Amino acid sequence: MTIENLRAVAENMPFNKLIGLRVARLHADGVTLECGMRDELKNIAGVMHGGVAATLADAAVGIALARHFGGRRPCTTTDLKINYLRPIAHGKIVARSHLVRIGQNLCVGRVDISDAQRKLAAVAIVTYMLL
Amino acid sequence: MTIENLRAVAENMPFNKLIGLRVARLHADGVTLECGMRDELKNIAGVMHGGVAATLADAAVGIALARHFGGRRPCTTTDLKINYLRPIAHGKIVARSHLVRIGQNLCVGRVDISDAQRKLAAVAIVTYMLL
Amino acid sequence: MTIENLRAVAENMPFNKLIGLRVARLHADGVTLECGMRDELKNIAGVMHGGVAATLADAAVGIALARHFGGRRPCTTTDLKINYLRPIAHGKIVARSHLVRIGQNLCVGRVDISDAQRKLAAVAIVTYMLL
Amino acid sequence: MTIENLRAVAENMPFNKLIGLRVARLHADGVTLECGMRDELKNIAGVMHGGVAATLADAAVGIALARHFGGRRPCTTTDLKINYLRPIAHGKIVARSHLVRIGQNLCVGRVDISDAQRKLAAVAIVTYMLL
Repeated sequence: MTIENLRAVAENMPFNKLIGLRVARLHADGVTLECGMRDELKNIAGVMHGGVAATLADAAVGIALARHFGGRRPCTTTDLKINYLRPIAHGKIVARSHLVRIGQNLCVGRVDISDAQRKLAAVAIVTYMLL
Repeated sequence: MTIENLRAVAENMPFNKLIGLRVARLHADGVTLECGMRDELKNIAGVMHGGVAATLADAAVGIALARHFGGRRPCTTTDLKINYLRPIAHGKIVARSHLVRIGQNLCVGRVDISDAQRKLAAVAIVTYMLL
Repeated sequence: MTIENLRAVAENMPFNKLIGLRVARLHADGVTLECGMRDELKNIAGVMHGGVAATLADAAVGIALARHFGGRRPCTTTDLKINYLRPIAHGKIVARSHLVRIGQNLCVGRVDISDAQRKLAAVAIVTYMLL
Repeated sequence: MTIENLRAVAENMPFNKLIGLRVARLHADGVTLECGMRDELKNIAGVMHGGVAATLADAAVGIALARHFGGRRPCTTTDLKINYLRPIAHGKIVARSHLVRIGQNLCVGRVDISDAQRKLAAVAIVTYMLL
């Protein structure tokens, strides 16, 4: 899958579109997503809501798997774990996934979420089950 | 805090508003949130995006803490873990939090996420740090 | 499986034996394990090592599944998450599992770990894959 | 702290001693622990018990923090998450921690657990609270 194919799929998925994520780069072991910070993505403290980072982590592994399997293997998230390290208040949110296991049933990726200055803001591990 | 006070705070938080969550009920040890399923909250498989359930889990613990502390203790999510058990395609998404630990620095809640028929769709544990 | 059958299997598993866990009770949706606190299970602070609680959480779900399937379905842990709420320094460690999802491939249980006074010391969620 | 100092502390911690872990190497951002696989560390399937990998993950971050703070900051695990990717049946178990956040209250590390052939067997994220 080219980055254009992947964008067509990933960026049109309804919730991804609501969040506003973009497939920025492809890597040998994963993808980089970007999302512009905006008021709608904030919590009461005026920084990125935890749910936004979780969504980007989930999507960064799911899109890496879509690419790995050429979009031909439906799969679903079974578990997601995330640690929030630093708040992001503005600029870009960057989510880089690394697939660490492609199994017959389960696939696992880890994700680094950073701000525009590449300061680490969250780390996550996400599991997908192939259907 | 009355449920009206809590709603005023929680439902106007920008990302909660984008998702469309509502504070449905207060309990001795937590709160119940509800969110109507709609196309914008779906993934490519046509079911609730994993990020939506993570957002509800995060919010269900955060809002229970806002109520516990009368809205006077700012806090931030430090870790979130969620297992997805069953897809939700339509109807309501219901998130019930139970605070299991109120510490001096860290507070922990667990969350059951169900569909309109009260079938369990996800389970989560969320940690907040008091600031 | 009777509790005696289950004990024969669970308590003779090498690492469970090293830890010293015991199947204390069976419930409709899970099991209760107990483990006597002793010096060998401690960390440098003189309280239960985090690895002990993780081991009990893992075992409490695995043994509940062994019982659910009558010991006829081999399975393996795929993910474990645990939050430590309070230290345990002496007395018994009690781990009560609740199976929340028995799927075709994945089974999920949540576990409450308490001290002898039934004060909650940790909460966990554990996933097993059926082989 | 030299590796000898660190070993004196870490390898004499009672539960670490029971498991048999060894501080193998120090790195700029963490440590490498090793543990010889042996029958006592196995589950009923004859492979490493999930609790052993969780213990190594916990220890690999705790020992990296002991070194970072020169052994002068007591701390306690507050949350641990681990995904099991492949079984380990014999040889060495190698746990490499990377500290990703040293905060005023919370410190987070991620851990890669591998077998003797450096095949990845588990990935974990562990949080400690400074006391």
